[in-house]
Amino acid sequence: MPGPSRSPPALALVTSACLALTLLASMGAVAGKVGTRYQPTWASLDSRPLPEWYDNAKVGVFIHWGVYSVPSFGSEWFWYDWIAEKKDKYVDFMKKNYPPNFSYQDFAADFTAEFFDAKRWAKILKKSGARYVVLTSKHHEGYTLWPSKYAYSWNAKDVGPRRDLVGELADAVRSETDLVFGLYHSLYEWFHPLYLADKSNNFTTRSFVDNKIIPEMKELVTNYRPEVLWSDGDWEADSAYWRSCDFLAWLYSDSAVRNTVVTNDRWGRDAQCKHGDFLNCQDRFLPDVPPSKKWENAMTVDRESWGYRREAQLQDYLSLSDLLALLARTVSLGGNLVVNVGPTKEGTIAPILEERLTQLGDWLAVNGEAVYHTRAWTRPNDTLASNVYYTQSADKKTLYALVLDWPHDNVLKLASPRLRAPNVTMLGHGALEVAINSVIEIKFPNAHKLKNKTAWGLRISGLLP
Amino acid sequence: MPGPSRSPPALALVTSACLALTLLASMGAVAGKVGTRYQPTWASLDSRPLPEWYDNAKVGVFIHWGVYSVPSFGSEWFWYDWIAEKKDKYVDFMKKNYPPNFSYQDFAADFTAEFFDAKRWAKILKKSGARYVVLTSKHHEGYTLWPSKYAYSWNAKDVGPRRDLVGELADAVRSETDLVFGLYHSLYEWFHPLYLADKSNNFTTRSFVDNKIIPEMKELVTNYRPEVLWSDGDWEADSAYWRSCDFLAWLYSDSAVRNTVVTNDRWGRDAQCKHGDFLNCQDRFLPDVPPSKKWENAMTVDRESWGYRREAQLQDYLSLSDLLALLARTVSLGGNLVVNVGPTKEGTIAPILEERLTQLGDWLAVNGEAVYHTRAWTRPNDTLASNVYYTQSADKKTLYALVLDWPHDNVLKLASPRLRAPNVTMLGHGALEVAINSVIEIKFPNAHKLKNKTAWGLRISGLLP
Amino acid sequence: MPGPSRSPPALALVTSACLALTLLASMGAVAGKVGTRYQPTWASLDSRPLPEWYDNAKVGVFIHWGVYSVPSFGSEWFWYDWIAEKKDKYVDFMKKNYPPNFSYQDFAADFTAEFFDAKRWAKILKKSGARYVVLTSKHHEGYTLWPSKYAYSWNAKDVGPRRDLVGELADAVRSETDLVFGLYHSLYEWFHPLYLADKSNNFTTRSFVDNKIIPEMKELVTNYRPEVLWSDGDWEADSAYWRSCDFLAWLYSDSAVRNTVVTNDRWGRDAQCKHGDFLNCQDRFLPDVPPSKKWENAMTVDRESWGYRREAQLQDYLSLSDLLALLARTVSLGGNLVVNVGPTKEGTIAPILEERLTQLGDWLAVNGEAVYHTRAWTRPNDTLASNVYYTQSADKKTLYALVLDWPHDNVLKLASPRLRAPNVTMLGHGALEVAINSVIEIKFPNAHKLKNKTAWGLRISGLLP
Amino acid sequence: MPGPSRSPPALALVTSACLALTLLASMGAVAGKVGTRYQPTWASLDSRPLPEWYDNAKVGVFIHWGVYSVPSFGSEWFWYDWIAEKKDKYVDFMKKNYPPNFSYQDFAADFTAEFFDAKRWAKILKKSGARYVVLTSKHHEGYTLWPSKYAYSWNAKDVGPRRDLVGELADAVRSETDLVFGLYHSLYEWFHPLYLADKSNNFTTRSFVDNKIIPEMKELVTNYRPEVLWSDGDWEADSAYWRSCDFLAWLYSDSAVRNTVVTNDRWGRDAQCKHGDFLNCQDRFLPDVPPSKKWENAMTVDRESWGYRREAQLQDYLSLSDLLALLARTVSLGGNLVVNVGPTKEGTIAPILEERLTQLGDWLAVNGEAVYHTRAWTRPNDTLASNVYYTQSADKKTLYALVLDWPHDNVLKLASPRLRAPNVTMLGHGALEVAINSVIEIKFPNAHKLKNKTAWGLRISGLLP
Repeated sequence: MPGPSRSPPALALVTSACLALTLLASMGAVAGKVGTRYQPTWASLDSRPLPEWYDNAKVGVFIHWGVYSVPSFGSEWFWYDWIAEKKDKYVDFMKKNYPPNFSYQDFAADFTAEFFDAKRWAKILKKSGARYVVLTSKHHEGYTLWPSKYAYSWNAKDVGPRRDLVGELADAVRSETDLVFGLYHSLYEWFHPLYLADKSNNFTTRSFVDNKIIPEMKELVTNYRPEVLWSDGDWEADSAYWRSCDFLAWLYSDSAVRNTVVTNDRWGRDAQCKHGDFLNCQDRFLPDVPPSKKWENAMTVDRESWGYRREAQLQDYLSLSDLLALLARTVSLGGNLVVNVGPTKEGTIAPILEERLTQLGDWLAVNGEAVYHTRAWTRPNDTLASNVYYTQSADKKTLYALVLDWPHDNVLKLASPRLRAPNVTMLGHGALEVAINSVIEIKFPNAHKLKNKTAWGLRISGLLP
Repeated sequence: MPGPSRSPPALALVTSACLALTLLASMGAVAGKVGTRYQPTWASLDSRPLPEWYDNAKVGVFIHWGVYSVPSFGSEWFWYDWIAEKKDKYVDFMKKNYPPNFSYQDFAADFTAEFFDAKRWAKILKKSGARYVVLTSKHHEGYTLWPSKYAYSWNAKDVGPRRDLVGELADAVRSETDLVFGLYHSLYEWFHPLYLADKSNNFTTRSFVDNKIIPEMKELVTNYRPEVLWSDGDWEADSAYWRSCDFLAWLYSDSAVRNTVVTNDRWGRDAQCKHGDFLNCQDRFLPDVPPSKKWENAMTVDRESWGYRREAQLQDYLSLSDLLALLARTVSLGGNLVVNVGPTKEGTIAPILEERLTQLGDWLAVNGEAVYHTRAWTRPNDTLASNVYYTQSADKKTLYALVLDWPHDNVLKLASPRLRAPNVTMLGHGALEVAINSVIEIKFPNAHKLKNKTAWGLRISGLLP
Repeated sequence: MPGPSRSPPALALVTSACLALTLLASMGAVAGKVGTRYQPTWASLDSRPLPEWYDNAKVGVFIHWGVYSVPSFGSEWFWYDWIAEKKDKYVDFMKKNYPPNFSYQDFAADFTAEFFDAKRWAKILKKSGARYVVLTSKHHEGYTLWPSKYAYSWNAKDVGPRRDLVGELADAVRSETDLVFGLYHSLYEWFHPLYLADKSNNFTTRSFVDNKIIPEMKELVTNYRPEVLWSDGDWEADSAYWRSCDFLAWLYSDSAVRNTVVTNDRWGRDAQCKHGDFLNCQDRFLPDVPPSKKWENAMTVDRESWGYRREAQLQDYLSLSDLLALLARTVSLGGNLVVNVGPTKEGTIAPILEERLTQLGDWLAVNGEAVYHTRAWTRPNDTLASNVYYTQSADKKTLYALVLDWPHDNVLKLASPRLRAPNVTMLGHGALEVAINSVIEIKFPNAHKLKNKTAWGLRISGLLP
Repeated sequence: MPGPSRSPPALALVTSACLALTLLASMGAVAGKVGTRYQPTWASLDSRPLPEWYDNAKVGVFIHWGVYSVPSFGSEWFWYDWIAEKKDKYVDFMKKNYPPNFSYQDFAADFTAEFFDAKRWAKILKKSGARYVVLTSKHHEGYTLWPSKYAYSWNAKDVGPRRDLVGELADAVRSETDLVFGLYHSLYEWFHPLYLADKSNNFTTRSFVDNKIIPEMKELVTNYRPEVLWSDGDWEADSAYWRSCDFLAWLYSDSAVRNTVVTNDRWGRDAQCKHGDFLNCQDRFLPDVPPSKKWENAMTVDRESWGYRREAQLQDYLSLSDLLALLARTVSLGGNLVVNVGPTKEGTIAPILEERLTQLGDWLAVNGEAVYHTRAWTRPNDTLASNVYYTQSADKKTLYALVLDWPHDNVLKLASPRLRAPNVTMLGHGALEVAINSVIEIKFPNAHKLKNKTAWGLRISGLLP
């Protein structure tokens, strides 16, 4: 992260393996049922229904952790910005603080993780109200947080923490929480020589994918059973190069998580915003109208980075209000919000981030009914009260309003819902006085009594059809 | 910090230089006027009036920064707890993370301060609403944050940052803010061999004080002109050993800051809670009744440490409410509150700490009138409303109430003030409805309109004498 | 190094690819001529004649350099002895000097090579009198001294020196000397997870060889054109597992060095002491009778290690006399002697090693005629004078005696040669008086006149057939 | 080292304490007898007889070890050449290999000494044939190899080895050998801020000497009882500034080594080549005619440095012949030769240095009679045979000739001695044939029989008076 917008190279002329293989595949699979087998074609793969848990979850936590957490400067793209882009900021930082022949790999020795306690992280995750978590198992740097056979001497067991970070977190999340455990995985590696060789061959060779990426992803899925597989780093090549359809057919048909796993859409430049179980499209994706398919808004508390930045200041972090505004807009359009935090090289989640997650969780503890298990309503927000966003219950019987600003004179005026009867409850508080005139007028209570100080959820029942 | 309670060794039998020297001193000084000369006796020194600015300032920020910010674990007493106390926690930490022959001094190389920007700190200090700042120029470890001639190879210019940290902050505070610049200085150094030699001689020798401490303090005062000199580490010996009276006579009579400097009371075990410009007595000093003399409550946002701890969690930090409660109690008794933060080895103030200081400053921007320049009132808090604390204006015409909890049913009932007329204003808001019955009843507004969400200041005028 | 004797595991049951492939191969190759193509069978490969230069060269220098040069303790088997064997010596060394989670890979950052000047090494090699040099391109640790595509983040360009050490030395040797440039390469890697996986599958899988070893060796040969390819680390598996015949057929038929390259015999446990261009059999191989095939004695100046040991003492190094005794015995049996030195992590050849190589070169400058281009004579040493070893010129017209000890009473008595006429010259000195009695008696001159103080070469002509 | 020639600043105008103090001193001391008390005047101090052991010892080993052994580059003046002289070589080395803010003090952490075994050093010293050893207890960098109270955090116990290196070597030398233990000590410290302050005051202040140097030297002598105190770093100031006479009076009268200690002449720019027990005058001092006083030639095996240089090559080290030529010239003029070696930061004596010391010791084992306990003869060398140097026994009955070159045609011709009878023995061999003609003609034996290959000692008796 961030994604595709950064590096749009010319399209390589490769036949789409996804397509090509279709012709050879037996056509017997019955699409659309979990438990069936899928063919390595987009047509077959796209026919798979979205595992139910995901749409209900609504809120996830993203965790960006890797060797970039050691320089912990600028962003998790540190290596690339320093070496490939040669941006002054990074070149100067290295010149000022390191000897000339210091390599990015040398940072790994200082990835100490001495305070990493997966159960402690699990507790924070639990407090956040999120229903799933996605950890970067390997970012574009290629360093794997698990002891991969395909990343000898460039993984968390061999250099740095000397621990299986993926395994520890997987275990803790499963034993301490009800969250679904997911993993991010980057297909490309900026500086992997096999990748660069394939790339310089215009992706007509596939040594990197065959010897590294496919076995590595299978190892990852087999060993840790992630139920989100969040793919990234696909954008320089086609899904054919990445053998994405092959892999996904295996994932959906043969892997241990075949019935529950969900994946995003970053499986090749032809797949983005199109295939996969849900769409990410781009970082911080937040459309104006609901996409045709389930989608996710992956964003980060630090405005400028997904990885931890030691130089970040208070103003760089989104406030709870900022987060709730994004959440309201996202769920009102049927999306999931996945909130990213970057842990430190020592293995801690900085208190400011723990605070944001805790604040979010405190808010969800009161207002979660308006978020979890909901669906987009006919209108995402009110035509009159612009900072009010709507969701509805899965059975469509209840409407929820997420009110971002305290109403003027304590009276909220809504134009969009049409009500049979004035039945409005403030979540965590109780019934409110309602007057139905040309618009619905809802009287807000004295703020000091409310459990949350910002953004309030209303349950509205008795809608006219 | 923390102070005297930790190490109470047996009193050394030394004649009090402070007393002894009195006899030799010329007796011509007229006590009690700034600008006069002081004798090296407690009697003369105690006659000096407190420079006015200090009592008016009310709020300071303390900064604990040093080599302990590198292990950044446990507390700033890391070295002592590890080596002298041999506490398991520290011994284990070192065993787990460092080679056997790693010395505390070796940490200094990693005191990088690469992100230290004194002007940025100055901005944060300004935002905090504090009126003075006190930086640890040298803690018990002996490492000086300035290039002292008396700490060769054990100062911030020789090892670690390679910068004059004291000088940089002094300049920035003076150019960017109106805060008064102060310095903390530890008399004793846990492991200085000259100190240990004097100590093993039962403080009958004074090589450490003569060759190290006195010249070092004079160098410090002369070079950086601190207007708070916050002494510490005195408790194992008498002020006679430390030559405190000599030094203070120089400070008050001959130094560049003689007219404005204030010092605390940690100048020898016989001086604590007794001499000096203001009393600290002990860390987090918060008496039940006003002491006979100006005093200060030095406390820290991290409940467990004055130096930065990398392992600290959200719950370890005081909330704004916690801070305001302490502030209210402190100023109601005429004290100053000095709020400590520990910067990181990189030179940043962690966002959670920046947030607390900013929250405090935001609160003071609204309620500062009830804090700055005030004096203790007859009663520190209300006899009926237990969480209401009082101050009064210097001219005694106005009473201020600091209300920590929102009143039940929005009506605050006060028993202590006796009013001529119902004249109560909520700071930052406006006049409130008041009814004077057996008690004073003050009607609170709808909370959502208020600029602060916790603790409210009331200006009450028209008191009966 | 050292080799096979250390780890003799049970033989895996695999069909010999070398054999199996024979059946499929076209049989048209004419064996025995350089320039012809070879089949991937031992029969075809063994038919290749030894490139001429190698038997004439007689003296080589071996260089063991790698990450083990950083701990530089015990031997180049440091990693294995520490982690796999858990030998006290190494475990204690690590405990005493490093933090608990220090990994072997962490040593690489300190492989600085800041003084490595390939031209300077070339000069030392030239002074040594050696005719070829063999550098460890990759030892059992797996770290490559060149930027291999197959050792991402575990090679000298990515971590440590940040330089292509193989390339620099290859260039310098070729531009500055007449030495033939050769490379050592280890097939197995102690801790490579793919190798360990194959091994735990009893070598019935070959992922390590297919994805790593074969492409890596081809890259190495293609990029650096070594004319010695010194294979090692084969002993846990059969040549079939290693695909040795495939590789050698490529090397002999298709590589850029196909006409001049020589390889040793370490290509699988079935190949040792049997196949290849010359035999190494075991480290310090020195047979009693001439083997059936060209052979080499690879030995090291440090009695205990091939890699540099910082703790080595004077007595651990062979003296010039020791070296000359080995040289005499080796060449008298038709072998080559390859003398190993281990450079430091800084990139220097320690002066004591430079001295030994220089002493050897000084000796060869005088006595080289009795070494280079010679052949084994009928008898390796004299039946009477036990410390006299023989060689003969390639045309068999001249006999050479290498006299290791100064003869008693200055008269050397030889029993083995039968002479037509008394024609004996001391190399670097001149004709000697000879008396032919029951034995040949040769009068030695006053030692102070001689250019070398230890071991003297005699040219003996006029032998009776 | 090296000494005075480097920095000749203008003479400070100070009264000579040595002289001035004389006037105040009680005049009762009887000069010239060991055991008597000495006054702090050069006149009194100079009257002390040289302790006998020193002139007889003839050969010492100097050891330069310190933080400069860590960069181990250029010379032990690394810090000065880098920072004060800003020589390109050093500035470039730092730029190339270290981060910009790396300080010299940071090197200390890497002064590991993990292989330092004082008994092993003692064995090497014993093998060298030397009769005393001088270790740099503190060089100009100020870092003390013992835990000095006056060098807190800048000594070998606090940073680096974490050991008392002086103490360990003192103990080992005394328990394992018969060598006399001595210590080198630098008066000045290039960058000590107190020294620089005194210097900028033109040496009219003496804070550095009073608070640092004098107590430090007394601590050193008291704790380790060195019997050579080899002073250095005096040249920028007068002996008055250094309080040398005071100190030496204490050393000669009150210290534990008062009866046996010897000191050199580097006690102030006015003292050099003039006062002290023996003269050093300058590094590698080797006069043409015997000085008026006992003297010493302090030289180093590495032509360019006293400290270990990692980049040193074979040609940089003196050969045994070079050493023996210096030894012969030195003892022929009545001097002592002290041969310097620089150990590594790891605590080893490099094998090349161990070899040189061993070669020297092997030679002395045969020829020591011509060196130890001898005196200068009337002529230092032969008028005819220019490379022959003479000594004589203390009783003047025996003449020794040290023959550096093997004589032409095996006959040595000497012109200087006048003999009664032809009585010449080659040391380690036996009587030689002698013919007395116009010159003395001595027949040398066949070289191969001799125990040493370079430089031969002859015992010549029966001289005509």
